[in-house]
Amino acid sequence: MKKLLTHAAAGLLALSLAGLASAQMKPEDAIKFRQSGYTFMAWNMGKIKAQAVDGTTPFNKDQVAAAANAIAAVANSGMGSLYLPGTDKGKGWKDTRVKPELFTDKEEVGKIAKNFVEQANKLQQVALAGDQAAIKTQFGEMGKACKACHDKFRIEE
Amino acid sequence: MKKLLTHAAAGLLALSLAGLASAQMKPEDAIKFRQSGYTFMAWNMGKIKAQAVDGTTPFNKDQVAAAANAIAAVANSGMGSLYLPGTDKGKGWKDTRVKPELFTDKEEVGKIAKNFVEQANKLQQVALAGDQAAIKTQFGEMGKACKACHDKFRIEE
Repeated sequence: MKKLLTHAAAGLLALSLAGLASAQMKPEDAIKFRQSGYTFMAWNMGKIKAQAVDGTTPFNKDQVAAAANAIAAVANSGMGSLYLPGTDKGKGWKDTRVKPELFTDKEEVGKIAKNFVEQANKLQQVALAGDQAAIKTQFGEMGKACKACHDKFRIEE
Repeated sequence: MKKLLTHAAAGLLALSLAGLASAQMKPEDAIKFRQSGYTFMAWNMGKIKAQAVDGTTPFNKDQVAAAANAIAAVANSGMGSLYLPGTDKGKGWKDTRVKPELFTDKEEVGKIAKNFVEQANKLQQVALAGDQAAIKTQFGEMGKACKACHDKFRIEE
């Protein structure tokens, strides 16, 4: 886990190296892949919310653990490499909402990305442990970590 | 892992229960979520292929492990619940390519889904171990598991 975290943080920070790792990738594909990752996390956040926060769906420990596991794996997958030069504008599944600042404010991006990965890893841990109250609390922290990036680096719809 | 596997297999098999678990979900969202999951896996398969199979990108053990981890987590996330009644046709990010047989041939779907999860878990294991030759072999098995479903249950573009 520590290794993955290090890799993910490095991946998210090293935006300038992204071009090297994905020389063959079309901008529209990079945008599509990152939109897919965020959308897939949103589905899994929704399941945890329904089961462990709102209680609109009965709490199922295995389902919540699988959802948190998916979120952590996506968070640790090095999505930073998908912010290729030339993907500040353009259409993947839909128009990207990324702000140009994400490509320039590397210090803030790195801080937000590191926290995002840490909160996702914590959510995975508490979900595996299965304590509903702890999951609810950590779900809130995860949501804040997502929102921190949305507020700074995503254009409002 | 065993628990997650059991859950995922159950989730993929229990299509008839999907409506219960996701009573609030719009068909277009269900299709969008599953398209996101497959597309995100495709990105990660592409990274493993480039690094451990084709050698077009230098082999990086941590990146390959993170990619396999993401594929396994998506495979174990219970995507079967996204095949809601009414999602045999319709548009998520794009028109669904699912064949109607996926909603009726439960035995075959179950068999294919179970193998898919097993191969993804094996890929995760060999990727964590880091032996490039073993990863290459298992990548082939993973590809076959994907293709088995595409051949039977996906409409050709």
